[in-house]
Amino acid sequence: MDLNNELKRINSVIDMEFKNIFKDKDVYQKRIIETIDYSLFTGGKRLRPIMAIKSYELFKDDIEEILPYAVAIEMIHTYSLIHDDLPSMDDDDFRRGKPTSHKVFGEAMAILAGDGLLNLAFETMADHIDKKAKTIEDYKKYTKAFKEISGYSGIYGMIGGQVVDLLATHNTMSEEKLLFMYKTKTAALIQSALVTGAIIGEASDIEVEAMREFGLNLGLAYQIRDDILDINQDKIIKKLTYLSFHDLDRAKIAVEEYSNKAMNSLKGLNNRNTDFFVALTEELISRDK
Amino acid sequence: MDLNNELKRINSVIDMEFKNIFKDKDVYQKRIIETIDYSLFTGGKRLRPIMAIKSYELFKDDIEEILPYAVAIEMIHTYSLIHDDLPSMDDDDFRRGKPTSHKVFGEAMAILAGDGLLNLAFETMADHIDKKAKTIEDYKKYTKAFKEISGYSGIYGMIGGQVVDLLATHNTMSEEKLLFMYKTKTAALIQSALVTGAIIGEASDIEVEAMREFGLNLGLAYQIRDDILDINQDKIIKKLTYLSFHDLDRAKIAVEEYSNKAMNSLKGLNNRNTDFFVALTEELISRDK
Repeated sequence: MDLNNELKRINSVIDMEFKNIFKDKDVYQKRIIETIDYSLFTGGKRLRPIMAIKSYELFKDDIEEILPYAVAIEMIHTYSLIHDDLPSMDDDDFRRGKPTSHKVFGEAMAILAGDGLLNLAFETMADHIDKKAKTIEDYKKYTKAFKEISGYSGIYGMIGGQVVDLLATHNTMSEEKLLFMYKTKTAALIQSALVTGAIIGEASDIEVEAMREFGLNLGLAYQIRDDILDINQDKIIKKLTYLSFHDLDRAKIAVEEYSNKAMNSLKGLNNRNTDFFVALTEELISRDK
Repeated sequence: MDLNNELKRINSVIDMEFKNIFKDKDVYQKRIIETIDYSLFTGGKRLRPIMAIKSYELFKDDIEEILPYAVAIEMIHTYSLIHDDLPSMDDDDFRRGKPTSHKVFGEAMAILAGDGLLNLAFETMADHIDKKAKTIEDYKKYTKAFKEISGYSGIYGMIGGQVVDLLATHNTMSEEKLLFMYKTKTAALIQSALVTGAIIGEASDIEVEAMREFGLNLGLAYQIRDDILDINQDKIIKKLTYLSFHDLDRAKIAVEEYSNKAMNSLKGLNNRNTDFFVALTEELISRDK
């Protein structure tokens, strides 16, 4: 399968969905719409919504149904980056080669744009459920997706990981705590996307759990691969990573182990064509940047 | 009716509900739970959740059903205050006589606590729907409430008002824009609470719209009363308020007019005992602080 073509195809669908979001741009508060737009269209890989859509496609065809949840997850990811980059957080001036939101629009507007995006993610889901649910089965699965997404992005999920990251010091960090941070800060939203795709695709409980397990291991492999790439950029000195606890060889083995576990989880999906996820996993763990 | 006793009674129910929220406090990220706790229990009047509960009680008795939505709305209100107080926003060191969140826990943690609270509001609703909805009618009304709440708190609601407030200058502010700001920044969450109470209480569409109209006018009366109180504290010079466009006499008349409109909206609720809302309106528009 041609991974890059597939990524491009799905990305253009996501672009279209994002462009349809704002009801009316000619409003008093249009500045926040410009601020949100800037971050949504700043060249992100859109891995999470792509994973949600491709997970859905393992089970069902009509991707209209998964799109609102896919873009909601990308909104949550995007808001977390805007807030992460703020001066009192990571204080980053650039992301993906472009000035960060607060450098362009000011700190206050960046905070509100992040808040607005998180809220918009839930508005998008609420709108979809209210408009599209017909049967009680529809309501059940949409509500389950809403619950999974809200859980993975909250204080027991992504935000929890950011708190641990924020408070991390060389004295208080343990390997166990680091793995908790990787599971929440990195794997959680990936799991959120994969599980949501499966739920909306009406996968069986066993298949949903297979995607959850796949996401966890892919997330960990992805993050440790990131740590390995960071070492080449001399970032390791100030950052606490997997390489604060292990040498490079062990880190490479860990990436292998987690990606093998991820691939194994895919075997829980009998008779589904998982070529895309196999190719994506191989791409993500061998990437050079 | 004894308004103060009733406010106290409902407030203690809300306190109990808040105390049950956190599943597990012995976690790596417990600092954010402490940060959130600090702001939830800092002596706010809890007007919005009280309004949600009392609106529900106009139509139904079992307040267990409205509580998750009532506390969700208070979480949204609380997160907006935490973010509003940040140095890049209003830069307030004190709220309700206590140091603001960022003064106690630092700016980064205050940002995350706000994000966490907004997210938690939606987690709380998702949990409730997933666990308690039995019939399709349950799903329909819970989803409608979720949609109303997410809309009123978003960029076309509360956040939209904050954007206008943030960008306000004496040159660009008009009375029309100011009223838009009051409707979104102040009235929206009040309407959100009242409408949600009515929807979950299975009010008729006409009754839901009566509560929406009541909330809009109460919100405007409340905000202009606030402006009048501000003038006595000499805050008026730097702030754009109703009194930037009108003299004190006109402002007092406006409070009267909006509160009369509010009272009139209550008449759309045939045979309901609206004593509480009449007493609350009278209290709010005549308050001295």
